[in-house]
Amino acid sequence: MDFFYSKNIEGKNIILNKNEMIHCVRSLRKKINDFIYVSDGNGVCYYCKIIKIESETCRLQIVKKDKIEKKIKIHLFISPTKNHKRIEWMLEKLVEVGIYRITFLICKNSIRKTVNLDRLNKIALSAMKQTQNCFLPIIDDCLSFNDAFELIKTNEKYIAHLCYDNIPFLFNSIKSDKNKCIFIGPEGDFSKDEVSYALNKGFVEVSLGNSRLRTETSGLISTVILNLKNE
Amino acid sequence: MDFFYSKNIEGKNIILNKNEMIHCVRSLRKKINDFIYVSDGNGVCYYCKIIKIESETCRLQIVKKDKIEKKIKIHLFISPTKNHKRIEWMLEKLVEVGIYRITFLICKNSIRKTVNLDRLNKIALSAMKQTQNCFLPIIDDCLSFNDAFELIKTNEKYIAHLCYDNIPFLFNSIKSDKNKCIFIGPEGDFSKDEVSYALNKGFVEVSLGNSRLRTETSGLISTVILNLKNE
Repeated sequence: MDFFYSKNIEGKNIILNKNEMIHCVRSLRKKINDFIYVSDGNGVCYYCKIIKIESETCRLQIVKKDKIEKKIKIHLFISPTKNHKRIEWMLEKLVEVGIYRITFLICKNSIRKTVNLDRLNKIALSAMKQTQNCFLPIIDDCLSFNDAFELIKTNEKYIAHLCYDNIPFLFNSIKSDKNKCIFIGPEGDFSKDEVSYALNKGFVEVSLGNSRLRTETSGLISTVILNLKNE
Repeated sequence: MDFFYSKNIEGKNIILNKNEMIHCVRSLRKKINDFIYVSDGNGVCYYCKIIKIESETCRLQIVKKDKIEKKIKIHLFISPTKNHKRIEWMLEKLVEVGIYRITFLICKNSIRKTVNLDRLNKIALSAMKQTQNCFLPIIDDCLSFNDAFELIKTNEKYIAHLCYDNIPFLFNSIKSDKNKCIFIGPEGDFSKDEVSYALNKGFVEVSLGNSRLRTETSGLISTVILNLKNE
């Protein structure tokens, strides 16, 4: 099953852009009248026939359309790790398990304050195609801790931290089957002021278990746990 | 909190081996009378005082001993991925979230048939120290699919595969709070014969959700799900 991505849908036709065309026609040697799958990255999967191959694009005819609905959308706010490779790894895995949106959070203890969005978007696209899951996440650039609150659109809001003992485990804190967001801090954790600020904004504080997880592991594990009721 | 590993416990003393001594004395510049934590990799954590530093070892005096019990032990049987880096990444994460034993499984569709056990044991040790979780997993070398069954010591046995549709989600299939094992197949999945063989041995077939996860992601996610009741 060969799987591609396009947002360029014109009635009963889909246009693949240059990168996707190269993957389809040159790498996988697809020809006119071959059939492929295309996702719009937003839950729609098209079964298509290749009808025209040009130098920079490829035109497809839609044969069948399926829409997949996600019950729960997860918005992960996470401080970038010092080592960019660890963010890249996390992103690949987040796309595999299913994520709606990722926002990078610059906290008091964040060491890295930038991410390579171009590279991250490429990794997300490649992971979406590999897992054929039809959802490409929104990836936001770095935002300050305080500014990030303006992006929150869910009522269920969690903050995972290690500032205090005896914080309930995330899995036992999930309230509903609705959309959720979670804040994950940097290597040095959130500051106590940041935790208080979030709690005042209606966040629920949670633990991710007895282990001291790395930041990127926390991002992935919390998304897996919040997604459990999506299956 | 500085955290080290040793299996060499002599009454009220612990001996750090050369590698651990170098990390402790040369990298972290610990001195006589400094205090450190040492784990035996099997759930015991010692709070110790450094009493003697020699050229190849370091002698500690135990001040306090804590034993952490794991309610559920997870034994993961997994086919090695073609790319060894992906196994290494998975192992680091498995140690972070908690795993008892990992056995590499050579299936009909396995492409890689060897792993670098030395390197994997080093990664596991480093991850255990980083997360300070006191458990170092047993890592077995590659075993043929059929031979692997002899290592199974649990009643709850799962096999995750994509051979058929409508297989129940692992999370909904968990029966008890007891020890568990799970089989994860190679990139090309288990063969139907392998699945039948496992089902005849009392395995329960499970899915890991709607996404087509990579092998190493499947290993991690299934361990997270099987561990949920450990928290």
